[in-house]
Amino acid sequence: MRPYGERSSHESPVRVLRELTKSPGTGSSRTPLQDLYGIITPSSLHFERHHSGVPNIDPDKHELLLHGLVDRPLTFTMADIRRFPSVSRICFLECSGNSIGGPSGSELPDVQQSHGLLSCSEWTGVPLSVLLREAGVQPAARWMIAEGADSSRMSRSIPIEKALDDVLVAYGQNGEALRPEQGYPLRLILPGWEGNTNVKWLHRLQLTAEPAMSTKETAYYTDLLPDGKALIFTFVMEARSVITRPSGGQKLSGHGFHQITGFAWSGKGKIRRVEVSTDGGTTWTDAQLQEPVLSQALTRFRFPWHWNGGSAVIQSRCTDETYYVQPTRDEFVALRGYNSGYHYNGIKPWKVQEDGSVVNG
Amino acid sequence: MRPYGERSSHESPVRVLRELTKSPGTGSSRTPLQDLYGIITPSSLHFERHHSGVPNIDPDKHELLLHGLVDRPLTFTMADIRRFPSVSRICFLECSGNSIGGPSGSELPDVQQSHGLLSCSEWTGVPLSVLLREAGVQPAARWMIAEGADSSRMSRSIPIEKALDDVLVAYGQNGEALRPEQGYPLRLILPGWEGNTNVKWLHRLQLTAEPAMSTKETAYYTDLLPDGKALIFTFVMEARSVITRPSGGQKLSGHGFHQITGFAWSGKGKIRRVEVSTDGGTTWTDAQLQEPVLSQALTRFRFPWHWNGGSAVIQSRCTDETYYVQPTRDEFVALRGYNSGYHYNGIKPWKVQEDGSVVNG
Repeated sequence: MRPYGERSSHESPVRVLRELTKSPGTGSSRTPLQDLYGIITPSSLHFERHHSGVPNIDPDKHELLLHGLVDRPLTFTMADIRRFPSVSRICFLECSGNSIGGPSGSELPDVQQSHGLLSCSEWTGVPLSVLLREAGVQPAARWMIAEGADSSRMSRSIPIEKALDDVLVAYGQNGEALRPEQGYPLRLILPGWEGNTNVKWLHRLQLTAEPAMSTKETAYYTDLLPDGKALIFTFVMEARSVITRPSGGQKLSGHGFHQITGFAWSGKGKIRRVEVSTDGGTTWTDAQLQEPVLSQALTRFRFPWHWNGGSAVIQSRCTDETYYVQPTRDEFVALRGYNSGYHYNGIKPWKVQEDGSVVNG
Repeated sequence: MRPYGERSSHESPVRVLRELTKSPGTGSSRTPLQDLYGIITPSSLHFERHHSGVPNIDPDKHELLLHGLVDRPLTFTMADIRRFPSVSRICFLECSGNSIGGPSGSELPDVQQSHGLLSCSEWTGVPLSVLLREAGVQPAARWMIAEGADSSRMSRSIPIEKALDDVLVAYGQNGEALRPEQGYPLRLILPGWEGNTNVKWLHRLQLTAEPAMSTKETAYYTDLLPDGKALIFTFVMEARSVITRPSGGQKLSGHGFHQITGFAWSGKGKIRRVEVSTDGGTTWTDAQLQEPVLSQALTRFRFPWHWNGGSAVIQSRCTDETYYVQPTRDEFVALRGYNSGYHYNGIKPWKVQEDGSVVNG
């Protein structure tokens, strides 16, 4: 018996780490989606995208400053934050750079590399709207600049409408405190919005009339279009799905029954439908959605398949409650070209080969 | 960046361990309910009740034998089990010995000791009914004896109706493999039924005409009544609730607003209603139930309270979808007396003292 448990020594799923620059602590770690069960991502395997390391913060010394266009600038200790009414919700986080490079990024050899900047947790915290009401939002406030306490002071500008809607100032994740890599002791959760706006190690919120036009919303996290113009402040993650089993790098153990399973999610609400094709997109059949299907959360789908031993291309496509349908790769490219590194959400085919091995399709 | 994350060094919630006999590996570890957020219990903090240690099982060598009154006795490897269709569900587990000793057990000084044999996870596995269909259940089979691979070969008898209903043969917990203390690599999950029947380290299922009358269903896990007779095979956990914050051992930081929060759950389905009293049971007001409210899962309730600084007795009572109402301590005792160590589910009062400290009420 142990005070705090660990997994079996026989278990090996890990995050894949990738350093992105020579600057220390800059990179990503990707969730092994192919190994997950259900919809909850273990906090130990939650994806990360770090812009300047992981600070080691003493919660007793951490403070959140709320200032700018407010009636009463306020500073909250963690004890203050915890005393406000709390709420919980299960929702996904996805980096808008998941499959960075668009179609080419999604062609990486396995789902951890192609889609692994995606996770889902039960988050607990105080509604940001409660803190804003405490401070008093002035009419001129149209934006909120959220800044983290990492070395780079990573910041993003968030429209006041979202700040007053469903944003959480979160300190809980999957039943316990946030993990250090997930923003301990405090982070923003913006349901359905690109991961980068969910600022970690949150220590400052400033209400302003204009956005900050910070590095991470101008040089990065903008969508370059074929005509050379760029979309900026593209916050909402559109509906997407992917088969995680069987997926690239796995091998089917034999002919006969296999359950095809994976995730679907939408930043705009609930998943309404997931269809699966096992014949390269010629025919599509509805998959079963695992209850509970929650708004802006991962939805687990399952599909029974009899593999006859031949070569087969399998893929999923989802529809969300707004009736938006996940595009094919060609449809995505027709709209956004090949320049856009962000927000790729095309249908992802896997090819099952005759020996049972699975590769990018 | 780390392949597999750990919690912050500033975080300290742990399970409380209690050895119950001199026999090694016999005891319990209790979940720190007072520190949890939301409804998911971190796997590292899930409660345990061990009857003979935690075996270290190599999943590649583990097998499940299904035999007895079946048409085709079968042995499944873990690879076999994983190839069957899987499902997931979020549900609670509670030891029927939670608050062992009935009213007196619930009077322990904090909620971890009084109610900590309670947790909630997202479980994934194959429906037992699928495996039973594969083997072919013979008409004479009325019971199923489930046996674990711990040193004591802990076993329980389960009616065939439940086995064919909603039981899972589970290998996933909160997104990853079961933890060793939770039955790695395979356990039963019987939604809503007393924890002991959810046999861990599952290695044998035998269909029989009669129950085994094993130690754990005769000498233990029976409910001794005032007249000296005992109820046996009392499987379903009836509706119960408890306030976890503020609770025994905690101290309110000052007068004014405090959120009262806790859990409600029922083995018979969904929680319909939770009421909170802050005046010793004179008046009751509905608490807010955190969505999603799931059948046979923990439901988080929240209640806004203005503490005026005086002494106050706070408590919760729940009603489930069958309209069963959680009894008071007196109502429980009137029915079952003081002998019954199991299935105590009375209303639990906490006393907030004038200095803000909270004690058993």
